[in-house]
Amino acid sequence: MQALYLGNGQLSYLDNYPQPVPAKDQALIGISLAGICSTDLEIVKGYAGFEGVLGHEFVGVVEQADSDPDWVGKRVVGGINLGCGICDVCLSAGPEHCPNRTVLGIINHDGVFADYITLPIRNLVAVPDHLPDEAAVFTEPLAAAARIIEQVDPSTEMKAAVVGPGRLGLLAGLVLANAGLSITMLGRRQESLSLPKSYGLETGLVGEAADNAFDLVVEATGNEAGLVHSLRLVRPLGTLVMKSTFAGKANVDLTKLVVGEINVVGSRCGPFDSAVQLLAKNKIDPRPMIEGLYPLQDGLAAFDHAARPGVRKILLRP
Amino acid sequence: MQALYLGNGQLSYLDNYPQPVPAKDQALIGISLAGICSTDLEIVKGYAGFEGVLGHEFVGVVEQADSDPDWVGKRVVGGINLGCGICDVCLSAGPEHCPNRTVLGIINHDGVFADYITLPIRNLVAVPDHLPDEAAVFTEPLAAAARIIEQVDPSTEMKAAVVGPGRLGLLAGLVLANAGLSITMLGRRQESLSLPKSYGLETGLVGEAADNAFDLVVEATGNEAGLVHSLRLVRPLGTLVMKSTFAGKANVDLTKLVVGEINVVGSRCGPFDSAVQLLAKNKIDPRPMIEGLYPLQDGLAAFDHAARPGVRKILLRP
Repeated sequence: MQALYLGNGQLSYLDNYPQPVPAKDQALIGISLAGICSTDLEIVKGYAGFEGVLGHEFVGVVEQADSDPDWVGKRVVGGINLGCGICDVCLSAGPEHCPNRTVLGIINHDGVFADYITLPIRNLVAVPDHLPDEAAVFTEPLAAAARIIEQVDPSTEMKAAVVGPGRLGLLAGLVLANAGLSITMLGRRQESLSLPKSYGLETGLVGEAADNAFDLVVEATGNEAGLVHSLRLVRPLGTLVMKSTFAGKANVDLTKLVVGEINVVGSRCGPFDSAVQLLAKNKIDPRPMIEGLYPLQDGLAAFDHAARPGVRKILLRP
Repeated sequence: MQALYLGNGQLSYLDNYPQPVPAKDQALIGISLAGICSTDLEIVKGYAGFEGVLGHEFVGVVEQADSDPDWVGKRVVGGINLGCGICDVCLSAGPEHCPNRTVLGIINHDGVFADYITLPIRNLVAVPDHLPDEAAVFTEPLAAAARIIEQVDPSTEMKAAVVGPGRLGLLAGLVLANAGLSITMLGRRQESLSLPKSYGLETGLVGEAADNAFDLVVEATGNEAGLVHSLRLVRPLGTLVMKSTFAGKANVDLTKLVVGEINVVGSRCGPFDSAVQLLAKNKIDPRPMIEGLYPLQDGLAAFDHAARPGVRKILLRP
């Protein structure tokens, strides 16, 4: 089958990669559409030391599901964490933090930039018929954005900001706005704020925002400068959600964190069912974020496009 | 009066420093005993840019209190934050995070390494007669330790560790043990663990403690290595309390914070009344931590002593 394979730090398009064989509890899924996210770009740079087929944002169709054949033919999205299913963590908190987990396209499990993947049947969430693939493919990042309001009890009195109006940041802003919060999208350049504005969100230049101005700040840049701003912007006793994974170390003055008694919340994967509902009920339409759709065989060009500053979603179709 | 004065980066003993004059809502307090903490040592190195009389841990006797003369003659400890009393923060959360606050011996208000201080009467807490000065002088750091269980709902099922068994770390461990938690004090050297052991606390070398072994980790070293260990030791979805102020920047890999969805809680000043109760009921006896008592005129020698590795509490008597 076709696949974008990362090996020895090099991303390659292969047309003869072996098709995966599902285990008994797994489904074989044909990929319809896949999305490139910032984590993929970081993994290509060496973050996480992954080798294999890249990619974890997808929508597809189940082709085989031996232990539950009702799934065959269904359009699905799916949770990216494959827990061992038997450890204390899996049995209490779920697979997201299983110490023995593999993660689709990130840790020891081939990902979605390919014709086919395998995934545990328990990870699957069905996509309603009326929801187009171009929206459903955003389920994974939208779930990650929705994770914020699982972790931080959202009050409509909260003044919130998202630092970094990019791929994940904009989805985080839309989730918080949908939850009723007053939300400002902050970016380094005016151009990055046009799309947030067209969604009706307040916007501003991050360098011009006042110290301690927000009850809740979501850090969605994944870089040190963004973290420094986020710490500056959150008020004493406020909450700072770290939504973007940092590749490498951050060199940051943490005085404000202690003296201001800031609550910092690391935030990763979120609820797929909530995300599908947000999309299905058209509470959030992510499709204006799509800036390019490439056939999988042009995957390297797609990655170049996705890596350009300010570019939001680039999709791949096998 | 006598005072240890920090000016131009130099700590000096003065015997002719002007005695402070209390404002209408303030008390004049004669200092009986004062304690040197790590923050004082950092301030001398330049943290916070303070100039003035140093020190914020004290017990003393009220000599003047014009707006409430009942206080005169009372033995007291007192909250170190002087809020403006009229801003939204003061009126809701209290003076600890007032943007216009001064702080005893730290920000724009002369501190306790002197014969006399002034402090708002509303900051005072009376010391029960039976509680000796040598215990009462620990009220401020013990309150800071008790702040942890205001911020983190303590469950007796929690496995907790304190990284850094020093001045503040040991008090944090004692507070958590008193709240019923299973607590391990972790240090870099066996010698630093003797006193924690003599309090009946579990101890261990921080380098030998397993990754992800604790639900709750209190970072009480104030240095980068301690923070790196703390992040390593806290389990995914666990809580990391940052109890020590960092002087300068920390260069730390924050991947675990995001991927493990760690909750990081900055922690500073705490409840004086709870701390006085812990001391008065002899739930915690901090006096074994005292390693030296110096007259104020030997304050510079006392600071040298306090700065030696592993030294816990050094007291000053005017």
